Amino acid sequence: MRKGLLVTEAAPRSPAAVRAKLTDVAALAGVSVGTASKALSGGGRMRPETRQRVLDAVEELGFRPNQLAQSLHTGRSWTVGLMTTDGIGRFSTPVLLGAEDALGAGKISVLLCDTRGDAIREQHHLRNLMERRVDGIIVTGRRTDPRGPLAGVDAVPIVYALSPSTDPADTSVVSDDRGGARLAMEHLLSTGRTRIAHLTGPEHHAAARDRARHAVEHLERASLGLATGRVHYGEWSEAWGRRAAEAVLRTAPDTDAFFCGNDQIARGAADALRERGVSVPGDIAVVGYDNWDTMALACRPPLTTIDMDLAEIGRIAALRLLEAIDSGPAPGVHTVPCRLVVRESS
Amino acid sequence: MRKGLLVTEAAPRSPAAVRAKLTDVAALAGVSVGTASKALSGGGRMRPETRQRVLDAVEELGFRPNQLAQSLHTGRSWTVGLMTTDGIGRFSTPVLLGAEDALGAGKISVLLCDTRGDAIREQHHLRNLMERRVDGIIVTGRRTDPRGPLAGVDAVPIVYALSPSTDPADTSVVSDDRGGARLAMEHLLSTGRTRIAHLTGPEHHAAARDRARHAVEHLERASLGLATGRVHYGEWSEAWGRRAAEAVLRTAPDTDAFFCGNDQIARGAADALRERGVSVPGDIAVVGYDNWDTMALACRPPLTTIDMDLAEIGRIAALRLLEAIDSGPAPGVHTVPCRLVVRESS
Repeated sequence: MRKGLLVTEAAPRSPAAVRAKLTDVAALAGVSVGTASKALSGGGRMRPETRQRVLDAVEELGFRPNQLAQSLHTGRSWTVGLMTTDGIGRFSTPVLLGAEDALGAGKISVLLCDTRGDAIREQHHLRNLMERRVDGIIVTGRRTDPRGPLAGVDAVPIVYALSPSTDPADTSVVSDDRGGARLAMEHLLSTGRTRIAHLTGPEHHAAARDRARHAVEHLERASLGLATGRVHYGEWSEAWGRRAAEAVLRTAPDTDAFFCGNDQIARGAADALRERGVSVPGDIAVVGYDNWDTMALACRPPLTTIDMDLAEIGRIAALRLLEAIDSGPAPGVHTVPCRLVVRESS
Repeated sequence: MRKGLLVTEAAPRSPAAVRAKLTDVAALAGVSVGTASKALSGGGRMRPETRQRVLDAVEELGFRPNQLAQSLHTGRSWTVGLMTTDGIGRFSTPVLLGAEDALGAGKISVLLCDTRGDAIREQHHLRNLMERRVDGIIVTGRRTDPRGPLAGVDAVPIVYALSPSTDPADTSVVSDDRGGARLAMEHLLSTGRTRIAHLTGPEHHAAARDRARHAVEHLERASLGLATGRVHYGEWSEAWGRRAAEAVLRTAPDTDAFFCGNDQIARGAADALRERGVSVPGDIAVVGYDNWDTMALACRPPLTTIDMDLAEIGRIAALRLLEAIDSGPAPGVHTVPCRLVVRESS
């Protein structure tokens, strides 16, 4: 990095360019450094002409205030840590981007930390974030299961997104799994389906358990039960979707709808049905969960599915964090509603 | 955020806890603030017992040095901007995580900026990164097409990852598309295939054009040509893979292998073949590109494919950036080799 010359907005890529300093601004405006600083911060009393001379000098020199120096002064770093435990990123990426969008609008920058689910990496990142005096932290992951609160945080606001904290004194923003299951059930019932099977992921995942429970509760309110009398727990994969669909057809051949815990299972089920000559949605409607475009659009036919609006979860988490930074924490769990996306499979 | 009390490592989540200051450390150690500072920075002459007293006080009070103040002192912020133009993230996420991993090992934090392919957002983020005095910037995106250099950067090193810069004076780290195509062709030829068709994405994408050109060159060295006499350009989708596979079977029914420009096309092709009763790999071998696990593993049969090692591209970009920060830029294009991942489709 070369130093020593001024940079202007007009010639920004000059290889020898370097930043103007506040002393350069003060010299050009013919004021003291203290006055230049006050003119920029908007504080202090001075004649409008003086302030204007400083602003003109800033413009002419392409001066950019030093955020680090400002942060030391204000006690705020205008940075937020975004910590994800999700190395793969299908779920956490939209959450991160939604949060980054909301924070960026408020001139806050995002320090990205990927813990890869490792407690030692989490502590390393956390220590680093504390040393950098972040104003707050958003924690997210790929699972909806509650997680333990971050340990070792000194009085910095934290918001948990998608994976809520187990501590009720923390602030969490989660997806409304109950509402998502209800939307799927209402849609199937309203289109005349009454013999609905449910294929989903592993029973030890909250996402699988919660959606199944809420689906069953909704059916019971309509005096119905699941077509096969039970939930088909398995894996979040197409292969499981295919196997489970075959099992349902053997047990309850009059099934007229599959509600699936994710889009991969739904796509596997739709493939198995097509290969057996069962029409989707003519004979059996299929509804997925996630609105993962790669799966939902490539499915034959394209999938009706539940969209958790992960970017909105990130956005709300960012807004809650900004509130906590300004006015102190607001403990509790905030749920973000799901949307039903109707395509040709139902 | 509440202030006024000390925090120690032993009771880190106390809600009223706040950070110890250097003055607290100095007071407990019975030295001046200047001596405490020198003891921590390792500089200055002092008796070992004095330094130890300061370190003991640091330990006891859970003192953490203020990174902001250190940055003002050293002129380095120990932060790097990671700018991505990829709102969806399938390609840029592994690159980002690879870079974050390499930088984090060097105690450098990553400021995440998503430009969503928008020039105004790019300038906004860039201004912000400059104000924060980042030590360098990594730019990545979802396409392998060259992109224009970042405008408005004041003498900060930049490395372009995956999408190279059009300016040969810049530093870029890209995937070896020639090597990837060669690996696929060598594999197919070595397993006895000689009538190879090529299905790929849009011709205006460099990834499609480059892989096709290198595949054809490699066939020509073996005195062979493409089975249908031409490249089947289309979309990066399963639907295109199915349509293109049908077209190939009509034109050149004796085709014995499909090399596909991505895994989605390969999966679509494999589906079309299976549904026509053509055995994969018995009659026709299928090779994809990307090693996107969702596609490659869910394909029936699981796909042989080319892995670009996107995390390694991110890691190398980070190492190149660290070199540039320390010793000045090293212009040029660095290519990261691909790996052949053999599964059941070939």
